[in-house]
Amino acid sequence: MEKKQLGPCVTFFPQPTTLVSTVGADGSFDLMTASWAGILSKTPPTMGVSLNKGRRTYELIRETGCFVVNMVPASLAVEADFCGLKSGRDFDKVKETGLTLSPATHVAAPLIVECPLNIECRYTGELELGDYRVVLGEILEIHAAAKAFGEDGSMDTRQFDPLVYLGGIRQYWGLGEKVADAYRDGLSLVKG
Amino acid sequence: MEKKQLGPCVTFFPQPTTLVSTVGADGSFDLMTASWAGILSKTPPTMGVSLNKGRRTYELIRETGCFVVNMVPASLAVEADFCGLKSGRDFDKVKETGLTLSPATHVAAPLIVECPLNIECRYTGELELGDYRVVLGEILEIHAAAKAFGEDGSMDTRQFDPLVYLGGIRQYWGLGEKVADAYRDGLSLVKG
Repeated sequence: MEKKQLGPCVTFFPQPTTLVSTVGADGSFDLMTASWAGILSKTPPTMGVSLNKGRRTYELIRETGCFVVNMVPASLAVEADFCGLKSGRDFDKVKETGLTLSPATHVAAPLIVECPLNIECRYTGELELGDYRVVLGEILEIHAAAKAFGEDGSMDTRQFDPLVYLGGIRQYWGLGEKVADAYRDGLSLVKG
Repeated sequence: MEKKQLGPCVTFFPQPTTLVSTVGADGSFDLMTASWAGILSKTPPTMGVSLNKGRRTYELIRETGCFVVNMVPASLAVEADFCGLKSGRDFDKVKETGLTLSPATHVAAPLIVECPLNIECRYTGELELGDYRVVLGEILEIHAAAKAFGEDGSMDTRQFDPLVYLGGIRQYWGLGEKVADAYRDGLSLVKG
């Protein structure tokens, strides 16, 4: 496959689209879109979110020591894009987007009700990388859309309808079709 | 939206599906599937990959100080799943999958020809989190499928056909339709 060289940059995809919800010491809430978010360890369950050190979200996480990572469904693409473009210093993003907050179980930062997956995190440290801070959060609880779970233990992925971000291409896409089952379909390559 | 509590775990999606290619001091190559991979900083462009400290890929990265993150297209879902299930200590994963390697520009680790995005990384450090190591790599070069770029500077996302991993649900999905343009469609919520 012929390739074109892009040089050293941050073009990488697919990425998640998340809204990070935070609370300040004064009780004010903020939301920020983050795609540089992911699992970093299973022992203990730990999430990392990389954000510019100048962001208000970083300031609030340091103030109150917690945050919630909310998975954005495709139906909220415009709201998510807005929360990435504007700062909570200039806009009340909860009000402008019309999103609904509800209390988390273990942390002061709120859950976004309309997001089908909410990950409660307690700040445990950070990694400094140039102008960015990889904020580390121990996962204390995960809330998932109840409608996605069948009585037989099955899970209906489409109920989550996750919004995929293409970093570098600057596009949001929805999921198409299931291609394979993990930890299973690869076994067909094992001769034996 | 009614929620079900999953407890502290690592259920999070959507995630990328990548194959990390490495080389040992003896010149042998290895491949490993990683979904806990993402951009961590723009200054300088830095990628992070979290992997269990017992993995051969971690051993090889420490031996030769480099790795390549290869984005997996939907057509290689089975090969990617195989490379996550089996260890390079037991299988020659390049041979078993039939994937083609080619030399990178700046590092000794190879590119996977069939992957439409290859990110060359120089190991710059790591973060210890329990049994996991978040390996940090400065991005030295990115190779992208030439067929995706139009003469007018446009990019045809479908040429990349990225495979999305749903962590916790253990499924691989393809992309569906474009939902929105980032850094643009959110402006519709700005009044005035």
